[in-house]
Amino acid sequence: MSSSNPGPAKQERIPVDPDKLRAFAAQVLIKLDVPPEDAHRAADVLVYADLRGVETHGMSNNNLGRIYVKGIRNGRINPKAEPRIVHETPVTALMDGCGGLGLSIGARAMNAAIEKARDSFIGMVVVKNSHHYGAAQYFSMMAVPHGMIGISSTNSNPLVLPTGGREPVYGTNPISVSAPSGDEPPFCLDIGTSAMVYQKLILTARLGNPIPLGVAADDEGEPTDDPAVAVESRKLLPLGSVPELGSHKGYGLGILVDVLCGVLSGHGASIQMEDAGYGSVGHFFAAIRVDAFRPLAQFQEQMDDMFQRIHRVPPAKGFDRVLVAGDPEHASEQRRRANGVPLLPAVVDELKELAQDVGVSWDLT
Amino acid sequence: MSSSNPGPAKQERIPVDPDKLRAFAAQVLIKLDVPPEDAHRAADVLVYADLRGVETHGMSNNNLGRIYVKGIRNGRINPKAEPRIVHETPVTALMDGCGGLGLSIGARAMNAAIEKARDSFIGMVVVKNSHHYGAAQYFSMMAVPHGMIGISSTNSNPLVLPTGGREPVYGTNPISVSAPSGDEPPFCLDIGTSAMVYQKLILTARLGNPIPLGVAADDEGEPTDDPAVAVESRKLLPLGSVPELGSHKGYGLGILVDVLCGVLSGHGASIQMEDAGYGSVGHFFAAIRVDAFRPLAQFQEQMDDMFQRIHRVPPAKGFDRVLVAGDPEHASEQRRRANGVPLLPAVVDELKELAQDVGVSWDLT
Repeated sequence: MSSSNPGPAKQERIPVDPDKLRAFAAQVLIKLDVPPEDAHRAADVLVYADLRGVETHGMSNNNLGRIYVKGIRNGRINPKAEPRIVHETPVTALMDGCGGLGLSIGARAMNAAIEKARDSFIGMVVVKNSHHYGAAQYFSMMAVPHGMIGISSTNSNPLVLPTGGREPVYGTNPISVSAPSGDEPPFCLDIGTSAMVYQKLILTARLGNPIPLGVAADDEGEPTDDPAVAVESRKLLPLGSVPELGSHKGYGLGILVDVLCGVLSGHGASIQMEDAGYGSVGHFFAAIRVDAFRPLAQFQEQMDDMFQRIHRVPPAKGFDRVLVAGDPEHASEQRRRANGVPLLPAVVDELKELAQDVGVSWDLT
Repeated sequence: MSSSNPGPAKQERIPVDPDKLRAFAAQVLIKLDVPPEDAHRAADVLVYADLRGVETHGMSNNNLGRIYVKGIRNGRINPKAEPRIVHETPVTALMDGCGGLGLSIGARAMNAAIEKARDSFIGMVVVKNSHHYGAAQYFSMMAVPHGMIGISSTNSNPLVLPTGGREPVYGTNPISVSAPSGDEPPFCLDIGTSAMVYQKLILTARLGNPIPLGVAADDEGEPTDDPAVAVESRKLLPLGSVPELGSHKGYGLGILVDVLCGVLSGHGASIQMEDAGYGSVGHFFAAIRVDAFRPLAQFQEQMDDMFQRIHRVPPAKGFDRVLVAGDPEHASEQRRRANGVPLLPAVVDELKELAQDVGVSWDLT
């Protein structure tokens, strides 16, 4: 629900047209031998993250250059991979991503889940041999216009400590679930299973700010508020932070993601991955037709009523209004579709460099 | 994963044979007009919680008397209700609990999900008009011997604050997911979506201990460590405690439970429930055949390997060993099946009174 700010607030942001940003990202990927359809889909996933305010996962953080172009160039990501379903039933499928681009593999797999749900009420697709797939909510939100509840999850390299341990055993392993509403924004939960994501930690450290006690640990596994220590140790704490506040719950959710994305797909859990950095990962997707249970319109009406009751709850000190998961992302999307995606000057510079490097034109700013 | 201790540690516990405890609970329910099959199932759900160390949800906490007998006697729970499926597809069902006993309704609904999964790979059953169903993990664990992943969840009356709000909007809304392993104990996640459950808070307050800052709030919605204030305000904080530590994640998970149990079933989300106390609630159950995706034996082998790798992680200060969700419950179950369920003397007294009151014999201690 929260967006992270990848730079000092005082730096003036440069608004960029989201359609142009999307076209640019697609061109870059096409230059790197990604088939046009996959490249356009991947670009859509990236810019959706920017629109929704999930800046750690979009162009705002130059993930295009830092993760995907880099991964293709160093041979880790195969741009021409053709993901394929290797086993299926009417309601399930196992997809082999064949080492391709997670952004487009994710969309293909979620589409397969939606198709299955259309025919058989539920569709569940797990993926092995994929890579970093961007913002989890892109895929869960794909189900919503079809009157379905969408689920999306991915595992990743170990970065989070288990309760009572001093070495990371799971990645920030996000879970996203989206559901249709009527007049209100769709419900959209998109949460990492650590207390804080690593990118945000790095940013806080870069700004010289202390980090809250309970998001990261030192080398011994003890909580630290020293950003330098935390960035060095690369040991995040689970959602719930410490045992007294329920860290075993966040840790358990992280392992649940590994069970669904890593073990059910056969790809391997976070702790079974040999690879460091943006290595290969597994995903889990599901689509569930609401009208398998009750008429969609009734469901939407009750969702709206729930949202509205929550919005009427008196806010605590320091808050204007009580929000529901999906509210901040929806507001960001409305704002940024109208006013553009606000990029930091440093990111614009990086993207310009990337354009020159890859050999596409930059006419966005 | 953690068990709570419903009494001062120094009080000597009285070990009780679990089979006798189960038979006693069934007899009490039968006396109250619960049909024998439902009564025996309900008793099994209750004593399973005790065996697994989830003492807040079993006989150890006298939930039999405090929740179920009380609910039947005051007319809230209909002991003779005949839950029925009101809408279904090959992979989904909506069950109307007809105001009956949640313990047995839950088992019926989970059985329906398992049956559907057996035929069609996935089964998903939502329930409306049910009541307090006990320990969520009983139902998710029902799937495991069938080579399935099980999911179980229930909503409940508002007790937890949303991030940024000063009135509760959701219940402690637990999520449980279990999955088969081979030699290792099954994976079993069973977590409330608040930082701490209310029963544990009450206990801490009763013992005069301070509560950790981050589990409960005062009347204004500000975190408090004063147990008296916390018990009085009845305002728990979400998993993640405060915004800096990711409270919006726990809050979002709590609302997700409401979407699945309350809105998908049509029962109503926590905030839409008029009722106070142990009112009527909705549930969500799912069963997923592992072999819809890959051979069960391969899945189990990889689960075991994941568990074993995690067990080898060096423990942090104050811990002997890193555990996985399901490990502590499995250990408790082994211990208590052998040595009996250790009840507090005060609880034994309450159960004896209940026996006399209802008119069944007590020969357990």
